[in-house]
Amino acid sequence: MAEVKKAVLAYSGGLDTSVILKWLGDTYGCEVVTFTADIGQGEELDSVRPKAQALGVKEIFVDDLREEFVRDFVYPMFRANAIYEGEYLLGTSIARPLIAKRQVEIAAQTGADAIAHGATGKGNDQVRFELSAYALNPDIRVIAPWREWDLNSREKLLAYAEQHGIEIEKKKGGGSPYSMDANALHISYEGGVLEDPWTPAEDDMWRWTVPPEAAPDQAQEVDLTFERGDIVAVDGERLTPYEVLARLNRIAGAHGIGRIDIVENRYVGMKSRGCYETPGGTLMLKAHRAIESITLDREACHLKDELMPRYAKLIYNGYWFAPEREMLQAAIDASQTHVNGVVRLRLYKGSVSVVGRDSANDSLFDAAVATFEDDAGAYDQKDAEGFIRLNALRLRLGRRRR
Amino acid sequence: MAEVKKAVLAYSGGLDTSVILKWLGDTYGCEVVTFTADIGQGEELDSVRPKAQALGVKEIFVDDLREEFVRDFVYPMFRANAIYEGEYLLGTSIARPLIAKRQVEIAAQTGADAIAHGATGKGNDQVRFELSAYALNPDIRVIAPWREWDLNSREKLLAYAEQHGIEIEKKKGGGSPYSMDANALHISYEGGVLEDPWTPAEDDMWRWTVPPEAAPDQAQEVDLTFERGDIVAVDGERLTPYEVLARLNRIAGAHGIGRIDIVENRYVGMKSRGCYETPGGTLMLKAHRAIESITLDREACHLKDELMPRYAKLIYNGYWFAPEREMLQAAIDASQTHVNGVVRLRLYKGSVSVVGRDSANDSLFDAAVATFEDDAGAYDQKDAEGFIRLNALRLRLGRRRR
Amino acid sequence: MAEVKKAVLAYSGGLDTSVILKWLGDTYGCEVVTFTADIGQGEELDSVRPKAQALGVKEIFVDDLREEFVRDFVYPMFRANAIYEGEYLLGTSIARPLIAKRQVEIAAQTGADAIAHGATGKGNDQVRFELSAYALNPDIRVIAPWREWDLNSREKLLAYAEQHGIEIEKKKGGGSPYSMDANALHISYEGGVLEDPWTPAEDDMWRWTVPPEAAPDQAQEVDLTFERGDIVAVDGERLTPYEVLARLNRIAGAHGIGRIDIVENRYVGMKSRGCYETPGGTLMLKAHRAIESITLDREACHLKDELMPRYAKLIYNGYWFAPEREMLQAAIDASQTHVNGVVRLRLYKGSVSVVGRDSANDSLFDAAVATFEDDAGAYDQKDAEGFIRLNALRLRLGRRRR
Amino acid sequence: MAEVKKAVLAYSGGLDTSVILKWLGDTYGCEVVTFTADIGQGEELDSVRPKAQALGVKEIFVDDLREEFVRDFVYPMFRANAIYEGEYLLGTSIARPLIAKRQVEIAAQTGADAIAHGATGKGNDQVRFELSAYALNPDIRVIAPWREWDLNSREKLLAYAEQHGIEIEKKKGGGSPYSMDANALHISYEGGVLEDPWTPAEDDMWRWTVPPEAAPDQAQEVDLTFERGDIVAVDGERLTPYEVLARLNRIAGAHGIGRIDIVENRYVGMKSRGCYETPGGTLMLKAHRAIESITLDREACHLKDELMPRYAKLIYNGYWFAPEREMLQAAIDASQTHVNGVVRLRLYKGSVSVVGRDSANDSLFDAAVATFEDDAGAYDQKDAEGFIRLNALRLRLGRRRR
Repeated sequence: MAEVKKAVLAYSGGLDTSVILKWLGDTYGCEVVTFTADIGQGEELDSVRPKAQALGVKEIFVDDLREEFVRDFVYPMFRANAIYEGEYLLGTSIARPLIAKRQVEIAAQTGADAIAHGATGKGNDQVRFELSAYALNPDIRVIAPWREWDLNSREKLLAYAEQHGIEIEKKKGGGSPYSMDANALHISYEGGVLEDPWTPAEDDMWRWTVPPEAAPDQAQEVDLTFERGDIVAVDGERLTPYEVLARLNRIAGAHGIGRIDIVENRYVGMKSRGCYETPGGTLMLKAHRAIESITLDREACHLKDELMPRYAKLIYNGYWFAPEREMLQAAIDASQTHVNGVVRLRLYKGSVSVVGRDSANDSLFDAAVATFEDDAGAYDQKDAEGFIRLNALRLRLGRRRR
Repeated sequence: MAEVKKAVLAYSGGLDTSVILKWLGDTYGCEVVTFTADIGQGEELDSVRPKAQALGVKEIFVDDLREEFVRDFVYPMFRANAIYEGEYLLGTSIARPLIAKRQVEIAAQTGADAIAHGATGKGNDQVRFELSAYALNPDIRVIAPWREWDLNSREKLLAYAEQHGIEIEKKKGGGSPYSMDANALHISYEGGVLEDPWTPAEDDMWRWTVPPEAAPDQAQEVDLTFERGDIVAVDGERLTPYEVLARLNRIAGAHGIGRIDIVENRYVGMKSRGCYETPGGTLMLKAHRAIESITLDREACHLKDELMPRYAKLIYNGYWFAPEREMLQAAIDASQTHVNGVVRLRLYKGSVSVVGRDSANDSLFDAAVATFEDDAGAYDQKDAEGFIRLNALRLRLGRRRR
Repeated sequence: MAEVKKAVLAYSGGLDTSVILKWLGDTYGCEVVTFTADIGQGEELDSVRPKAQALGVKEIFVDDLREEFVRDFVYPMFRANAIYEGEYLLGTSIARPLIAKRQVEIAAQTGADAIAHGATGKGNDQVRFELSAYALNPDIRVIAPWREWDLNSREKLLAYAEQHGIEIEKKKGGGSPYSMDANALHISYEGGVLEDPWTPAEDDMWRWTVPPEAAPDQAQEVDLTFERGDIVAVDGERLTPYEVLARLNRIAGAHGIGRIDIVENRYVGMKSRGCYETPGGTLMLKAHRAIESITLDREACHLKDELMPRYAKLIYNGYWFAPEREMLQAAIDASQTHVNGVVRLRLYKGSVSVVGRDSANDSLFDAAVATFEDDAGAYDQKDAEGFIRLNALRLRLGRRRR
Repeated sequence: MAEVKKAVLAYSGGLDTSVILKWLGDTYGCEVVTFTADIGQGEELDSVRPKAQALGVKEIFVDDLREEFVRDFVYPMFRANAIYEGEYLLGTSIARPLIAKRQVEIAAQTGADAIAHGATGKGNDQVRFELSAYALNPDIRVIAPWREWDLNSREKLLAYAEQHGIEIEKKKGGGSPYSMDANALHISYEGGVLEDPWTPAEDDMWRWTVPPEAAPDQAQEVDLTFERGDIVAVDGERLTPYEVLARLNRIAGAHGIGRIDIVENRYVGMKSRGCYETPGGTLMLKAHRAIESITLDREACHLKDELMPRYAKLIYNGYWFAPEREMLQAAIDASQTHVNGVVRLRLYKGSVSVVGRDSANDSLFDAAVATFEDDAGAYDQKDAEGFIRLNALRLRLGRRRR
C-alpha cells in the first residue's frame, strides 16, 4: 500500500465519518482534512467544526455550496428533462460530482494526496465520487474505508467509536432505520423494510412531504417564469436558483407532491429499492416540459427526448465530468434559447397539473394555424395530400412486393 | 379525377360523416359502403344501421373490434411504455391503424376501390388512416372530403344536410364545444377555449374521470397481474384484454386519475392543445414500469427507454404498419418473456402510486445482494475498486492531456 | 395563383434554367434576377453573365462561394464523419443549403418576393432548396417549374427554347447521357443506363478520377494536419479550406480514389441509383477518423458514431437550417477541441489506407499503459477482475432466474 | 481462495497455455481438462492431443466449431452491418462467446467447477470470455492466470516451462514479434512496432492477404447470393456458411483486400493499435449493404444504421449473451425477410466495389417511379409541393419567431 500523507475526508459529523476520520489516521498514518458541504440538506452544520476539532483535525472546511449546486448542476440537468428509468429525478446522483470537485480542489489547496469518502462498496455513490475525482485529478488517491475495513455493521462501528474515544450524539428517537441522503433537490430512503419490494413504505418515513391525505383541501396555483430553460421567478418574484428550489420544496411538500417508491438498477449491477421525495423538482420537471411544449421546435423536442435516457444514465452512473455528458449538454443547452415564458401549475393532494402556459415572444403555438375554425388561408389543407402520399410511397412499394 | 366505383366510408352516424356519405355519392357518383367500429368509445351503435339505411346505403358494416383493439394494438404498445412528448399516452393514435385495416378488408370484401374518412386536412388522423391504408393496400384510393370540399364550417355542413334531407339528431345540451374522440383507451378534447394554451380547461369538459376533489377520501388499492408484459388479471380476477382496460377505466376514473392537458406537436407541422382522459392506461403504464423494475434486466430496460421515444413517435405519426415499427416491436417483445408478476397500486384523488411489486419466479431483485446488512459474501465490495478504476481510466488519461 | 413581382432564379446558363428564365416571365409576368454560384463545380462561369443579359435579365449575380462552402458547410459536416446509408458522402446535399441561403439573401437585397430553381419534383434537391429557403425566410414564395409545367422531356425543352429564341450551346460530344451535379466536394451521375441497378456504370462516365487500373503503379503518401477537427495543411503546407479540398481532389483523383456506385433511398420515397466521385472527401473522412482514433475519448467517439446516421439523414433530407441539426452540431463541435495532429495516408490504385497518426499534445494513446510488455505499474491487471465481475453481476442474476 | 476441483482450460498447445496447464495444477491442486476449438484459425490441431497427454491431461476436447461459428455468430452479426468505431469488423470479438459457451458446456459435462483462459488482464478478451461464461453459468469459477501470477514476460514463461519439463516447439523463424489471433473471420496483430501509432506496419507482418501491389493486374468479379440476409452461394455455387467464408477469404486475400490498421478503444479503458486482415468479411459487408440497398425499406435501413454502433459495441465489449444484444438481434433479424438476391462485386488491388445488384422477387427499386424520363403517372410531382410545405411548416413558424 503506497503511503498517504494527507487525506481530505468528506465529513458529516456523524458516526460513520467520525469513525473513518480516526481510522484513516490509524491505518494510513496520514493527516486528515475534513470537508463538509452545505448543499441544502437542511441540517445544522454549526456543530461540525467543533466536532472535527475535538477529533484533532487542524484543517477544517465547511462550505456553503447551495447556489453553485442548484445553478451549475441541478438547473442544467433539468434543461434535459432528465429522469432515470422513467421515475427517478436523480437527486442523489447530481450532488456527488460537486462534492468530489470541491474535495479535489481542497486537496490541491492543502497539499493532500488523497481523498476519502464514507460510501459503501455496494452503492452508486462510491462510483460517482471516484469517477468525478479521477476525472478532475487523475493522480489523486482515493480511500474508500467501507471497501477496506471489516467494520461492516453498526455494532462494530459503535464499538470502534467507543474504543477510540469518539463521542457520538444519540439521535433523537433513536435514529432512522433507513439509510438516508438529502440535498436541496431531494431526500432518499433505502434499507430497512424497503428491502422487500412488496412491503409498502411506512407512513412515518417521509420527511419533506405531508401525506396527500393531510394536504390542504384547496388546490393551489403557482406560476413559474422561465428564461432560457431555467426558472427565474416564482409567482412573479425573482429568485436565485437555490431560492427557487427551496421555495418550491416548501410549496410542493405542503401538498404532498413528489414522493416516489421504486426499484432501480444500480451501476454496480444489482437492483435496489429506493423511496425519494423531490417536491420542488417534480414541479420543475412538469413546468419545464410545459414551457418547452409551446416554445421548442418539434424535432428539437424529439431529439431531446431520445437523448434524455442516455443523459440521465450518465448522471446516474457518475459521468458528469465526462466528455460525452458535456457533448450532450452542449446539444441540450443549444435548444434552450427560446425556452422563455410562464407556466401555471395546480397542486392538489399529491398531484400537480399544468393549467396554462404562455410565452410573450417565443411561442410557436399559432392559433391561426391550429384552429378548428376557418383559418383564413394560414394552412392549405390540400398540402396534406402530397405530404401523406410521399410519406406513404415506400410503404406502398413495400406492400406491392409482398 | 379518376373514377370511383365504390367507397368504404368510416361512418359514425353523426353530422359530418352523414354529410360525407351524401357528398360522396353526389361528387363521385359512387356507391357507398359504411363501416362503423365499436372500439370501446362507449356510444350506442344500434342506431347506426337504420341511419345508414335511411340514407340509402346497402352494404352496412358494424363491427365489434374491442378485443382486437386492446389485444393487438393497445397491449403491444404498452409493452413499450410508450409516451409521446413525455405526456401523451397515444389514445387516438393507436386506434386509427385498426380502423384503416378493417376498412381496407371491407373494401376487398365488397369490391370497393376507395375508402373515405372524415378527418380534416390539419390533423394527424388523416395521416394515420391513410398511411395505414396505403401500407395494407398500395392501390387503394383514399378520399378525404375535408381536403376537397368547401364545407369548412358547421353552418355550411348543417345547410348541406338540410338541403340534402339528412336528418341530424340534436345533441342533448346543444353538443360539446370541443372536438372529441373516444375509444377504450381514452377520450380526447380539442378546440374551443382550448385553442388558447393559457386558458384552463373547463371543469365540465371532462367525461370519464371525476375531478380529483370529488374522488373518494379513502385511497383504494388495486392489484394487477402481468404475464409476459400484459395484464391478465385485476385484483386476482382473470379478464380479457378489453375487460381489463374497461375495468381499470372505471376504477381509475372514479379516483380522478388520468387527465392530462398538453400542447403537442402534430406531424403536419403545427402545435395544438389537447386534453385527454386515459384513466386505465395511466394505471397500466405505471404498473408495467413497476413490474419491469423487478423482472427486466438493467440494460434491456435502458435500451427500451432509449428506443421508446422513437417508437411512440412512429405510432403518433401513423406508422403502425411500417417495417421500422415492426422491428422495434420485435425487440420490445423479445424483452417481455420474464415480465411476470403482480403490482399493487394505490389510487387517491387524481394520483396513482406503486406500493408493492412481486414476481414469484422472475424477480431479479436479490435481497441478499442488495442488503445494507451483512450479505454473507453474496457481493464482494472489493470488486468495486477495479470496476471504478477501469471505468475511470479513459477519464484520467483525458485529464492528463489537458 | 398569387401574383409574383420578381423572382431570383438559380441559373446555370444551361438549357433547363434558360428555359425556366423565359418561362417564368411568360407564366408569372414577373421580373427575373439570376444567381449563379461558384461552389467549385469546375465550370467556366464567364459566359453566364452575357447569356443572362442576352435573355434580358437586368440584375445578375455571379458569386464565388467556394471558401464559404467548404469552411461553413463541408468542414462542419466532416467533423461528424457523416455518411448516408453507409456509403454516400453527401456531396450534393451539403451544397443546396448554401445556394438557398444566398438566393434568399439576394431576394431580400433586390426586393424579390420569390425564388425559383430547376430541380425536378422527384428528387431530393427540391426539398433541400425549399426547406432551406423557408427556414430562412418563412414568407418567401418558391417556384419549381418542373412541378408545374408540361415540358417533361428534353425534346419539349428544346422546342420551347427554339420557339422562344433561346440560344443553346451544343455540348461537345453531344452532352452526357447522365444527370450530373458537381461542386468542390463531388460530382454525381444519375439516370441513363444507371436506371437498372444490375447494369455497371460505363467506364467513360467518370470525370474526376482515373480508373484504378490507370493510376500510378507507385503508391503515394500524403500527410494531413488537423486543428480542432479540420484539415489546415496538406503535406505541411498551410491551405485554406477550399484549397485543401481542391488539392486533395487532384491527388486522390490521380489515384482513382473516391468512386462509389450505390442505390440510395430518397426522401421523397423512392430508391434511386447514383454514382459519385468524392476523391478529396474520401481522404478527409479516412483521415478524420484516424486523428480522432488517437485524440478522442472513447465514449465521445461512440456517441458521435450513434448520432452520425441521424445527422447524415438530416443533411440528406435538407434540414441543415433546422434546430435539431444545430443541436447535433453543437454536440459534435464540442468534441473536437483536442482533435489536433497529423495523419499519414497511403494512396494506391483506388484505395486509401492509414499508415500513421500522431498528435504532439493531444494524444490519448498511452504506450506505457497499452504495452504488451511490462508496464511498470501503469495499469493494475487485478482491477480487471472487479471490473468484469460487476459488469457480469446482472447477467449472472439473469441466468439464475432461468 | 476457494478450492477448485477441476478446471476446463482453453488450450492451444503453445507456450502460454502449456505453462498455464501446469501452473493450474501446481497452484490450485486441481485436475485440468483441456479444450481446443477449431474455429477456422487455419492451424494444425493434430498435435494438440498428444501434447496435452504428454502433460498428463486425461480429459481432452478438440472440437470442430467452424460451421457453428460462422452460422450462429458471424452471419447474425453481418446482418447488422456491424463495424466498431467505423473500421473494425469484430473478428476477434465474435469468436470469444462461442469458445466460452463450449467451455461452460464441457465444464458441465466433466463436472468441472472452473474454467481458465490465457487472456491477459489488459485486453478485451478476458472480458469477452468471462462475461459469456458468467452469463451461461452464474456459478462458474473463472481463473485468469495472467491476472494472478508474476510470469509477466516471455523470459519468465520460458524459465517456468524449462523448470517444469514443458516441451516447447521452436517456432519457425523465431516466431512472430506480434501478438496474433486468428479464426475463420480474421487474423489480428498487436504489439511490437505497432505500439507506436505513427510507425507503419511492416510489410511481412500480413499473412492472409497479398500486398495490393502484388495482386493480379486483372480485376475479378464475384457474385454473392443472399437469402434472408445471409450468403448462401458464391458465383452460383451453393455453400455452407463456413465454406462461403473460407472461399471469400481466399478470393479476397489474393486481391489484397481486407487489411486495416487502426487505433481502437478497448473496453478496459485504454487505446491500442491493431492491424487486422478480414478479406472475406470485407466482401460480405460490402455485398450485404448492396443487397439491402435494393430490398430493404428506407426507414428499416436507417433504424439499422442507428442501432448498429450500439450493437457493434456490445459485441466488442463481450455482451453477446446479454438480453440487450438479443433484443437488437430480434429487431435486425425481423428486417431481413426480404433481403434476397444477388450482388456482383469487383475486386482489384486492395479494393472492392459493387457493380451490380439484383433481386428477382424482393427488389424495392422501381425504375418506373425513379426514372428521369416520363414515368407515365407512376409518381405525381405535384405531391412534392405539399410534402415540402408541411415539412417546412415548423421551420417557418420557428423563423417567424426570431
